[in-house]
Amino acid sequence: MQKIGFIGLGIMGGPMAANLVKAGYDVTGLARSAASTERLHQAGAKPASSIAEATRGADVVITMLPDSPDVEAVVLGPEGVLDAASEGLLLIDMSTIAPATSLAVTEAAQAKGVRVLDAPVSGGEAGAVEGSLSIMVGGEAEDVAAARSILEAMGKTIVHVGDTGSGQTVKAANQLLVAGIITLVSEALVLLEASGVDGERGLEVLAGGLAGNAILDRKAATMLARNFRPGFRIELHHKDMGIAQASARAAGVALPVTGQVAQLVAAAQAMGYGAQDHSALLQVIEALSGRRTD
Amino acid sequence: MQKIGFIGLGIMGGPMAANLVKAGYDVTGLARSAASTERLHQAGAKPASSIAEATRGADVVITMLPDSPDVEAVVLGPEGVLDAASEGLLLIDMSTIAPATSLAVTEAAQAKGVRVLDAPVSGGEAGAVEGSLSIMVGGEAEDVAAARSILEAMGKTIVHVGDTGSGQTVKAANQLLVAGIITLVSEALVLLEASGVDGERGLEVLAGGLAGNAILDRKAATMLARNFRPGFRIELHHKDMGIAQASARAAGVALPVTGQVAQLVAAAQAMGYGAQDHSALLQVIEALSGRRTD
Amino acid sequence: MQKIGFIGLGIMGGPMAANLVKAGYDVTGLARSAASTERLHQAGAKPASSIAEATRGADVVITMLPDSPDVEAVVLGPEGVLDAASEGLLLIDMSTIAPATSLAVTEAAQAKGVRVLDAPVSGGEAGAVEGSLSIMVGGEAEDVAAARSILEAMGKTIVHVGDTGSGQTVKAANQLLVAGIITLVSEALVLLEASGVDGERGLEVLAGGLAGNAILDRKAATMLARNFRPGFRIELHHKDMGIAQASARAAGVALPVTGQVAQLVAAAQAMGYGAQDHSALLQVIEALSGRRTD
Amino acid sequence: MQKIGFIGLGIMGGPMAANLVKAGYDVTGLARSAASTERLHQAGAKPASSIAEATRGADVVITMLPDSPDVEAVVLGPEGVLDAASEGLLLIDMSTIAPATSLAVTEAAQAKGVRVLDAPVSGGEAGAVEGSLSIMVGGEAEDVAAARSILEAMGKTIVHVGDTGSGQTVKAANQLLVAGIITLVSEALVLLEASGVDGERGLEVLAGGLAGNAILDRKAATMLARNFRPGFRIELHHKDMGIAQASARAAGVALPVTGQVAQLVAAAQAMGYGAQDHSALLQVIEALSGRRTD
Repeated sequence: MQKIGFIGLGIMGGPMAANLVKAGYDVTGLARSAASTERLHQAGAKPASSIAEATRGADVVITMLPDSPDVEAVVLGPEGVLDAASEGLLLIDMSTIAPATSLAVTEAAQAKGVRVLDAPVSGGEAGAVEGSLSIMVGGEAEDVAAARSILEAMGKTIVHVGDTGSGQTVKAANQLLVAGIITLVSEALVLLEASGVDGERGLEVLAGGLAGNAILDRKAATMLARNFRPGFRIELHHKDMGIAQASARAAGVALPVTGQVAQLVAAAQAMGYGAQDHSALLQVIEALSGRRTD
Repeated sequence: MQKIGFIGLGIMGGPMAANLVKAGYDVTGLARSAASTERLHQAGAKPASSIAEATRGADVVITMLPDSPDVEAVVLGPEGVLDAASEGLLLIDMSTIAPATSLAVTEAAQAKGVRVLDAPVSGGEAGAVEGSLSIMVGGEAEDVAAARSILEAMGKTIVHVGDTGSGQTVKAANQLLVAGIITLVSEALVLLEASGVDGERGLEVLAGGLAGNAILDRKAATMLARNFRPGFRIELHHKDMGIAQASARAAGVALPVTGQVAQLVAAAQAMGYGAQDHSALLQVIEALSGRRTD
Repeated sequence: MQKIGFIGLGIMGGPMAANLVKAGYDVTGLARSAASTERLHQAGAKPASSIAEATRGADVVITMLPDSPDVEAVVLGPEGVLDAASEGLLLIDMSTIAPATSLAVTEAAQAKGVRVLDAPVSGGEAGAVEGSLSIMVGGEAEDVAAARSILEAMGKTIVHVGDTGSGQTVKAANQLLVAGIITLVSEALVLLEASGVDGERGLEVLAGGLAGNAILDRKAATMLARNFRPGFRIELHHKDMGIAQASARAAGVALPVTGQVAQLVAAAQAMGYGAQDHSALLQVIEALSGRRTD
Repeated sequence: MQKIGFIGLGIMGGPMAANLVKAGYDVTGLARSAASTERLHQAGAKPASSIAEATRGADVVITMLPDSPDVEAVVLGPEGVLDAASEGLLLIDMSTIAPATSLAVTEAAQAKGVRVLDAPVSGGEAGAVEGSLSIMVGGEAEDVAAARSILEAMGKTIVHVGDTGSGQTVKAANQLLVAGIITLVSEALVLLEASGVDGERGLEVLAGGLAGNAILDRKAATMLARNFRPGFRIELHHKDMGIAQASARAAGVALPVTGQVAQLVAAAQAMGYGAQDHSALLQVIEALSGRRTD
């Protein structure tokens, strides 16, 4: 029975850890409060009061954290994962961070004999709860093989996409596609409604053809209702578009539509929609078209 | 048994007319050559040698033509459909044209007692052959009801989206979504490959999540192989992006990403890819990223 | 002494006609009301009550009208300029219209023995009053030579840029540059102010270097004061961006920044700033940056 | 007589240091080779063999370095400026770097009693040689006053734009304007030439009106001749567009045209024009319009 330390028990990490317990793993989660300790007990996991305690004795440590600086602090910082790790530990970072940070963390870990996979996810809170996440994994083939059954406890589609950092690059590509398609669906909807066409019937027929996409399938109803309760927040997607652009710069490529969509996500953030679902990009297009009065 | 005149027997119109014959309709097609006369005979349809001949005695005339000027010429021109039409004729224009042209044609037709539906389609040559097109219909509810069984002989998803011209507006929205998503998939692929990630495995995992879309499902393989045999040609999509922009201008809305994608489609045309499949937009992104040597 | 008919005595055309009188020309203006008749008398010009009256007996007819349909109606329409023109008339169209319309008008005129120059202007109301307009002239060299002293009565920089329609193409290029630079200045100003930098001192130093431009020289003060009294209205610039994009499409080129700026001008129009000066584009950038509360 | 240490004697820094000598200052420059030692002797400056030697005993140290990491290394690194500085030293950083780096350097310096101005320049090699640079200065008013005569030896327009980091923000605004205007001029030129209009005469008339700008004044001739010898290199402007976008992100604003222009500069870099003048952006627009055969 493998022992897993889990650091980062938020909206995503909490249900992911619970799914590992259900699959039979011995999970120790980092609990920062009495409330989170209680939740861990209920999920069947053990609480740890420090990163070191969650790490010591673990075969695998999983991190699921908001941003690059968090991962740097937890893994590289004083009393962090690397300080407490035994040689041979497998660290699976499932956060969405900059590929460059991922590479830096991996290099530091390997110097201590710790193996690292970058394994960001797609699928949102529902995917985390249902254990149906898409997981894009970067790293050595043998480490991916060693982690596969653990990852399968959390996700449905597990793809080894390449070397260290590759998982983050694929996640960056995922995020530029998602934000771009939300914006395009918003532009289509604004055009339909401003032209006097019924939005619901219009989106229905669009979903059935070559324009079909998962945003239309999963978000058309809430977008038509202007219900922007998250879901995945604009402020996180704004961070992710920064990562996508930095990845493009590092790779030496020019991505014109991505560059423009990043500015529209920045606008959504600047206009005060940061805590809303990323489908709130619709409100930016509506503002540009003079169709908002609030 | 309704009699149908069919004008515009190209890559799309040919198999659409054949499906009408299969469904039991009495179809007379406009044949401009011995070869097209022969094809009509094989499909079980009758050839007509003029627009007037295809129109006279028909209950329904269907037009499936390349662009706005073609529809104006065929319907409004001398010896055109309206000259030959009996009162009560139902004209179904399935071409993709400007909503403004659609309205002008309808107005002229109504003055002669001819009813009009605009019913552009999505689904491509395969959809036309299989009879599985998505058809977005604008016009009066009773005319749509009268046309429904005819449309069901050609398509699977038939949606009445609103008044006259609405079908064209939804088609414009469809085309901006399709071109936009092709561009975003191209940017994602260029980022992956330039970052050293395997494109095939990367696109596979993207297709499984919130970034999933019909372009990834149907065109990823050919895009990975740089096979741009049409399919739907860049030069037609360039025309359609002009319609989408004109529709936005007429509706008084601003569509920033559509505006940019239209320029990238114009670039694909200007760079000499007009006769290739619209997925050749990938080559524009590759050129901007210095990844083409031809 | 040459006789000039002048059609289109608005904010621009009025002072242009007055400058022709000052230069000694015999000017007959089309007056549609008692008030405009009175203004013509005061300027020293004669009023005419119809296009035909302004045209008959004239050596030169000048048109200065809002948009392509106006020029088509005045020149090509019934009882229009061509109906009343004698062979050998020189028609100078100084309106800003689509190059394609300019070509169509020229062709119709030449069939009647009328020579045509397209000669749109830049420089605004101040330039019209001061007689310091920039005039970009398309047409035959000998016609430009014949018109030169007339044009010099209204403008300071008179450049023969090419064949018929060329003047309109250069004007389209002018308008895309002006709208683009206003947008860039707006983005610079929003960045400065949001960063806590004094906008006035920031723009002052920008004006002195390679970023220097006529917008900074002439409009920085009013933009800093958020005074958007026209000047040149957004709604006219919106029309002109449509012309610029149509010209690009006709020429087979892709203009990515122009395409985007056109959408931002469309946004300014949609957001209700149509009657304000084109420097009101600043408000679109401010809205996208969450810096407007109205 | 104030003693000045000068670090960064490249294309810009070399003539700037020479102008300080001409103005009577006692200048010690960091020389890394025999050749640069010789150049310093010829300019009338003293060579130093280390940062420490250039710093010790100086009243003012000027840095003119390529990028943020260079400034961090020279100022903050071991044996760097702060290690060798006496309390009260005035450090004038004239490099173009990220405002955030500028703030970090200033904070570290102030902890050691060193005062800092950020004073990036505009005007290029010619401005450096002629002593006619525009200098945008951020920092405390009394420090700016103390530095003014030194800055006036190198530049013509010296503007104190705000607190520490403000100079860098204004420079970022300058760079987005310059790249944007070069792109707009390129789009105008491509439209003119593709429409059969003479580019030279077209640009001449554009320069005279509201579209007028310093790029047209200084670079039209070389752009028309497709002479892209630098001048200011694409690879540096690519770096600067990264700074402009990072500044916008830090300030919480959305700059749509800047975001797009940044991608076109990235394209110029990716297409292999990194060592050419920034006016080589013309070649990106030409490539998108199918007007390049190389």
